[in-house]
Amino acid sequence: MNLILIHSHEPDSAGRVSLAGERAEHILHVLKAAPGKTLRIGLLNGSKGRGMVERISGQEVVLQCEFEEKIPPRPTVDLLLALPRPKVMKRLWAQLAALGVGRIILTNAEKVERYYFDSHILEPDFYNERLIEGLQQAGDTILPEVRIIKELKPFLEDELNSVFPISGKKLLADPSGEKNIFQCMEPATPQRCCLAVGPEGGWTPYELELFAAHGFQVFTAGPRILRTDTACVALLSLLTLLSGSNEQ
Amino acid sequence: MNLILIHSHEPDSAGRVSLAGERAEHILHVLKAAPGKTLRIGLLNGSKGRGMVERISGQEVVLQCEFEEKIPPRPTVDLLLALPRPKVMKRLWAQLAALGVGRIILTNAEKVERYYFDSHILEPDFYNERLIEGLQQAGDTILPEVRIIKELKPFLEDELNSVFPISGKKLLADPSGEKNIFQCMEPATPQRCCLAVGPEGGWTPYELELFAAHGFQVFTAGPRILRTDTACVALLSLLTLLSGSNEQ
Repeated sequence: MNLILIHSHEPDSAGRVSLAGERAEHILHVLKAAPGKTLRIGLLNGSKGRGMVERISGQEVVLQCEFEEKIPPRPTVDLLLALPRPKVMKRLWAQLAALGVGRIILTNAEKVERYYFDSHILEPDFYNERLIEGLQQAGDTILPEVRIIKELKPFLEDELNSVFPISGKKLLADPSGEKNIFQCMEPATPQRCCLAVGPEGGWTPYELELFAAHGFQVFTAGPRILRTDTACVALLSLLTLLSGSNEQ
Repeated sequence: MNLILIHSHEPDSAGRVSLAGERAEHILHVLKAAPGKTLRIGLLNGSKGRGMVERISGQEVVLQCEFEEKIPPRPTVDLLLALPRPKVMKRLWAQLAALGVGRIILTNAEKVERYYFDSHILEPDFYNERLIEGLQQAGDTILPEVRIIKELKPFLEDELNSVFPISGKKLLADPSGEKNIFQCMEPATPQRCCLAVGPEGGWTPYELELFAAHGFQVFTAGPRILRTDTACVALLSLLTLLSGSNEQ
């Protein structure tokens, strides 16, 4: 935890928050903070700040909080990901939040097994906990928005334009791409970007056509075939850097 | 498995190889290959090729192999990594091989616990199996060289120049860096590159000085603090692309 996240309802009117559980444990046993020590904190979906340890009683830690005015920007890259196996997705949540992603849109695809959608890893209580873990690791406060799409085609046809600006860049990594990522993005020109990552085995030709019809540009990420989780981390970090999202 | 790796001693003089175990299982139950079917194969540390299923008897598969002349190049990026916790390193082996790395040099550092070095995940039988898994995923044949360094300083002073060309680029990711990665690398100019990734908690100021004294340039990968495994995958894929290693 490089930042301790606090929910907006937690501080009292004097800016005091009383922590128990995992966060208190981290403060006491990892940071070994004594009264008077100042810690990096943040309001979930709000600004960052500093919390001074005011009092420790047993397993409870009371912080006196001060927050900055500025709220960190939402990361500029959105991820449209064909839902991976639950075991893989379980590991991805925290990593995606740590890398910084505006939205995580999980979608069905021809090569996605239907039963993946029944997994508990798609329940908000489950994934929010992991996303918050990733934010606390990375020192960010902005929780990615999560959407779960059971049908790709109607989503692309009816909803994509409302959730993602038409002017934004839409990219899809596929070995069929002729351009590489540098030819698709102008480095350090901040712009919103939606990245589509396919299932193990790739998108079908029909799905690729559908994406192309909705403005997605195909790029090649090289000849190596990566596991979904490796590909997501690799491509997301690339695009984050290229879209200028990293220059906070 | 997007490529089935074969050891150089396995084919007989007629180019026939008899597979049992995991590879045969994959051919029979995942690829569901029947006699006559041609599969992508490769010689470990050698060339790629095609294997025609000649015969299946029980759980044994016999392939008739043909190999190309060209041997794929060794990936241009080497990784010098402060040894992470065994649980994290265990997950990293296959991902590193899949992304493509010439050498994996695991080193001690001030913030690395000594007992990490006693773990079974550092035994060649253990890691080679995972590296081969990553190569088979990515479709590569070149096994990364692995070195385990128990003392960083003598390694940098006495050995770095012999394992890594002086003309190569040496980079270290640290929040103290003033340049970003684009300012350190010229995109698409192929060059060997050694990337140093620190432990959880970072390198100490003394270690940073040591690296600087041995030609490492510090760059910032942005304000987010990433877990070692996320950072390795993110930075390695970035450098691979920037060093031109991907343009096979």
